[in-house]
Amino acid sequence: MAGAPAAAPAPAIILVRPQLGMNIGACARAMLNFGLTDLRLVSPRDGWPNADAGPAASGADGVIDGARLFDSIEAAVADCTLVLGTAMLTRDLTRRVLSPRGAVAEMAALPRQAALLFGPERTGLLQADIALCHAIVQIPTNPDFASLNLAQAVVVMAWEWFMARDATPPEQTIHHDGPAAHGDLMGLIDAIDEAVAAHGYYNPAPGMEPAARRMLRNILTRPAFTTQEVRTLRGVVRALIHPRRRAVAAKLFAGGDDDAPPAG
Amino acid sequence: MAGAPAAAPAPAIILVRPQLGMNIGACARAMLNFGLTDLRLVSPRDGWPNADAGPAASGADGVIDGARLFDSIEAAVADCTLVLGTAMLTRDLTRRVLSPRGAVAEMAALPRQAALLFGPERTGLLQADIALCHAIVQIPTNPDFASLNLAQAVVVMAWEWFMARDATPPEQTIHHDGPAAHGDLMGLIDAIDEAVAAHGYYNPAPGMEPAARRMLRNILTRPAFTTQEVRTLRGVVRALIHPRRRAVAAKLFAGGDDDAPPAG
Repeated sequence: MAGAPAAAPAPAIILVRPQLGMNIGACARAMLNFGLTDLRLVSPRDGWPNADAGPAASGADGVIDGARLFDSIEAAVADCTLVLGTAMLTRDLTRRVLSPRGAVAEMAALPRQAALLFGPERTGLLQADIALCHAIVQIPTNPDFASLNLAQAVVVMAWEWFMARDATPPEQTIHHDGPAAHGDLMGLIDAIDEAVAAHGYYNPAPGMEPAARRMLRNILTRPAFTTQEVRTLRGVVRALIHPRRRAVAAKLFAGGDDDAPPAG
Repeated sequence: MAGAPAAAPAPAIILVRPQLGMNIGACARAMLNFGLTDLRLVSPRDGWPNADAGPAASGADGVIDGARLFDSIEAAVADCTLVLGTAMLTRDLTRRVLSPRGAVAEMAALPRQAALLFGPERTGLLQADIALCHAIVQIPTNPDFASLNLAQAVVVMAWEWFMARDATPPEQTIHHDGPAAHGDLMGLIDAIDEAVAAHGYYNPAPGMEPAARRMLRNILTRPAFTTQEVRTLRGVVRALIHPRRRAVAAKLFAGGDDDAPPAG
C-alpha cells in the first residue's frame, strides 16, 4: 500500500552483540510473524548457535537456522544500501532521525535491501555503532519508561513493515451465514411487536406508540442479525412469553422451523 | 492526532487466564513503554501475585503492583463501555472484526474506557470468551506463522494506541550544533576545489570542468554539514594533501581553528 513498490525487499534484521539467546529466539519469532526472515548476528555474547534461541523462537526455526554470523557491523551490512540503527535520541552527533513509519516508507522506496540494526539489551547501540548508520530510527515511547525489550523493538519495526503492505480494512464484519433476508427480520420484529402490544407495552402512553415502535425497529435492525440469529431470537421471545406452553407459542410465532436454542 | 479527543482514557488490558508470570511481566513492561497502566488479570493459572512477573516487568513495578485480579471476564470489564477481544478469525459466529488501527480509532472516539482482552498463551480466547466481546481485534500476521507471543500482541496494540497520539514526524534531523553558516561551507568547498585543481583533478577533461565542479558542490552541500563537521573535513583534506607538513597545510587552508581530529 501507500505507494510502496511490491518488489522492495524485506529488510535484514541485524542484532548487534545480543546478550541472551532467548531474546534472539524471540526476535526470530517476531520477525517471522510479520514476514521477515533475514536475521544476521554480529558477535553474539554467548556465541552461535545458542541453545536458548530455538525454544524462544517457538517454531520460527527457519529464521534461526538461516541466521548468519558476522564479526563486525561493517561485514554484516556490506550488501545493504540503507543502514538504519534503532537508538534513543543522541545529542552528540548530528543525525537524521526517522520514526518507525518514516523508516519503513524509506526502506520500501529502495530497489535494494535495507538493514535495521538493534543494539545489545543492556546498552543499545553505541555511538561508534551509530556512526556507521545512514540514519537513526527512534521508536517513540513513554518518556518516563522508554527502555524497550529487544524483541519488542523488533516487533514494532516488523509490524510497521508488515502493515505498510497489508490491505486489511480497519473494520469489517465476518458473516457466518450472511445477514438474514429482510423479510425474516421483519417477521421477527412483527412477532415481537404483536406480542408486546398484546401484553400492554404500548398502553401506558398511547401517544408515544409510533416513537416506541421506531425505537424497537431501530434496536432490532441495527445489528444486521443473520438468519440463524433471527431464528434464535424468535425462540427466545417465544420462551419468554410462554414458558411452558410450547404448542401455543409455536402457533403464535409461526415461521422459523429451527428456533430451539442452538447447540454449543 | 487523527481527530482523537485528547481525553479518551487509555484502554484496560485484560489478560484472560494467562499461564506464565514471565509473560504477565513482559506485558506490563510493554504497556508502560507505551503509556498504558490499567492491567487486569482474569484467573491467572498460577495465582497472583506471581514471583516471575516482577523481573520480566523490568521496572514496570507500578503496573504489576496495581494489577487487579478478577475471577471472570464479566467482572473484569463491568465498567468498560467497549470490550474488544484479540483473536484469530472465527468462522463460527458472525462478528465485527477490527484491525489494530481500527480498534484504536474506535477506542479513541469513546468518552469512557475500553477493554482489550488477550487470551491464554496456548489457546487464545475461546469462543465463549469472544461471545462476551463487542467485536474482535485481529492482528494481521504472516498467514504461515500467525501465532503471536502474548506480550508481543500487547506490544502491537499498545504501540498503535500510543502512535495514534504521537506527533513525532516521520523524519527529522537532530542537530548537535546546527548546520554550518553557508560561508563556512563555501570556505570548505573552495579549499577542496583549489586543492584538487592544483593537483590536476580538472585537467584530464577540461570541457567537463563546470559539471565536475557542480557535482563536487552538490556532494558537499547536500548533507548540510555542521560547523564542527566542516572544520573536521577541512582538517581531513589538509591531512590528505600534506601528510607531514602541517605548517604549510595550515597556511593553505586558513580558516578553522579547531580542525584537528575531534576526540572520541
